[in-house]
Amino acid sequence: MQSATVAIAATPADVFRDELIRHGHLLPTGVDGLYGRGEAFERVIAAVDAMVGRLAGDDRVEVLRFPPAMSRAGFEASGYFRNFPQLTAGISCFCGDDSAHRRALACTPAEGGWASHMQPADVMLTPASCYPVYPIVAARGRLPVEGWLVDSSSYCFRREPSVDPVRMQMFRQREQVCFGTPDRIRAFQSRWMDRAMAMFAALHLPAATDIANDPFFGRAAPLMRDGQRSQRLKFEILVPISDPDRPNACGSFNYHVTHFAEAYGIHAADGELAHTGCAGFGLERIVLALLRHHGMDPARWPGPVRAALSP
Amino acid sequence: MQSATVAIAATPADVFRDELIRHGHLLPTGVDGLYGRGEAFERVIAAVDAMVGRLAGDDRVEVLRFPPAMSRAGFEASGYFRNFPQLTAGISCFCGDDSAHRRALACTPAEGGWASHMQPADVMLTPASCYPVYPIVAARGRLPVEGWLVDSSSYCFRREPSVDPVRMQMFRQREQVCFGTPDRIRAFQSRWMDRAMAMFAALHLPAATDIANDPFFGRAAPLMRDGQRSQRLKFEILVPISDPDRPNACGSFNYHVTHFAEAYGIHAADGELAHTGCAGFGLERIVLALLRHHGMDPARWPGPVRAALSP
Repeated sequence: MQSATVAIAATPADVFRDELIRHGHLLPTGVDGLYGRGEAFERVIAAVDAMVGRLAGDDRVEVLRFPPAMSRAGFEASGYFRNFPQLTAGISCFCGDDSAHRRALACTPAEGGWASHMQPADVMLTPASCYPVYPIVAARGRLPVEGWLVDSSSYCFRREPSVDPVRMQMFRQREQVCFGTPDRIRAFQSRWMDRAMAMFAALHLPAATDIANDPFFGRAAPLMRDGQRSQRLKFEILVPISDPDRPNACGSFNYHVTHFAEAYGIHAADGELAHTGCAGFGLERIVLALLRHHGMDPARWPGPVRAALSP
Repeated sequence: MQSATVAIAATPADVFRDELIRHGHLLPTGVDGLYGRGEAFERVIAAVDAMVGRLAGDDRVEVLRFPPAMSRAGFEASGYFRNFPQLTAGISCFCGDDSAHRRALACTPAEGGWASHMQPADVMLTPASCYPVYPIVAARGRLPVEGWLVDSSSYCFRREPSVDPVRMQMFRQREQVCFGTPDRIRAFQSRWMDRAMAMFAALHLPAATDIANDPFFGRAAPLMRDGQRSQRLKFEILVPISDPDRPNACGSFNYHVTHFAEAYGIHAADGELAHTGCAGFGLERIVLALLRHHGMDPARWPGPVRAALSP
């Protein structure tokens, strides 16, 4: 058998990942996009998380926190598998008896291995921290006249293995979720974009806003993307992280129109379908941006940045 | 078709769960053992977590934090699926193209539904927060002469759906993991049991220690259980929570002998297989015990308990 040696130039993502690992911020697990986190990294995560909390100011908001799984029924209703099957992650379990267990253990890798003996469970991994919120709000009946606001946070999973540390399979997302009239959602969306831009400015990060679209799957993707863009439903705040020429979304500001309200049956006080929107922050990405722009040692970041993080 | 109406008396677990939901501490998701968490509940989780951190005192410890997934290779090496298949949770993903996606969407529930079109991925859900630590420590080569100590924490998953809020499918575990000689591990184990008992006393919770065993699966289970008990490898700290007559483990103090060292190849400075142990706290269970014993409103807990939680 012949082997070919191919010289591959290190990409900016490779270089950045190596540096993060060398400084103990990320610990490799053998799976691309899945890392342990070091102590300093986690301390900055907590500081950024608290900073997002301060942005909310006097907003009257219900604080909810979630483990990174949700019911399969709730996941299915969202339409996520229809639109983003490539990112979807299910949870499987073993339901057999002793002899089924022996068969699973005897199953060779060529036959699929023991993991092929597991069945889909009634739970899925959460793709965005706002997803578990909708069925909970729906179950309470009609919204108050003034609408509703939830602050949610969880680890999320997206199936996109990558060597770029910016593209993790598991990451934390802090989201504000707004329920109400179209006007309320549009005002919420622009208020949170302003707040986020002020936060990135305080963190001395070069941020820019842009109209965006979700990574829809398959033949219908161009249509879905065009619809989302032409209706200006999704905005992102982009910061260059691994690659100076390809900035990454660190914040995402979405108007869902009645997508989630139809999916879960969420109604306004007058009985009409509610409109919803969310403003989400990718906590890992913001910390990675800080490490990229201000250096690997948070203790040596510029004074104003450190002050913004621990006021 | 006939239907039978059966009157089922509410168990202590049912009553406790309803009370937790009514007070907004837990938010049901439609799946037993999977809940959202309210703001007050999360605040106490953070306080208990910080209290465990203070117990560590001046220990020289490496702090690592993990998302709740680990590599399938690392999971397999641990022997978890061999010993606890009933608790195991895999992650599955969709790897097909546009036409495979259409077939999945067309698959009826009777045929298994879209979820049956997903394949096992190279990642598993973490069953205990110390599991991702072993491969990381193994990859560094031999341990220092004095051994090593890691403080790990993550959400964990165990497939045991239950109406008892004490038995969650996803919960947080904070663990200290010790690597070294048998003497060091035994001293670590008893030191952390003392610290934990002092913590439960400060929290005014009725706690008792006991020799314990893991819930091994299948025919070999009695043998495994007996071995673990007779060698006094596993101790638990038990607190009555849902049911006064059936206390639950809130802390677990384990001596693994060379189980993990063999599985991952972890060697002491002299080249011998290392011994390992862990001291774990179930954060949700401790908070549930506090709510059970001191009432549903943390602001009205006894002064000394509140002082212990926010010194």
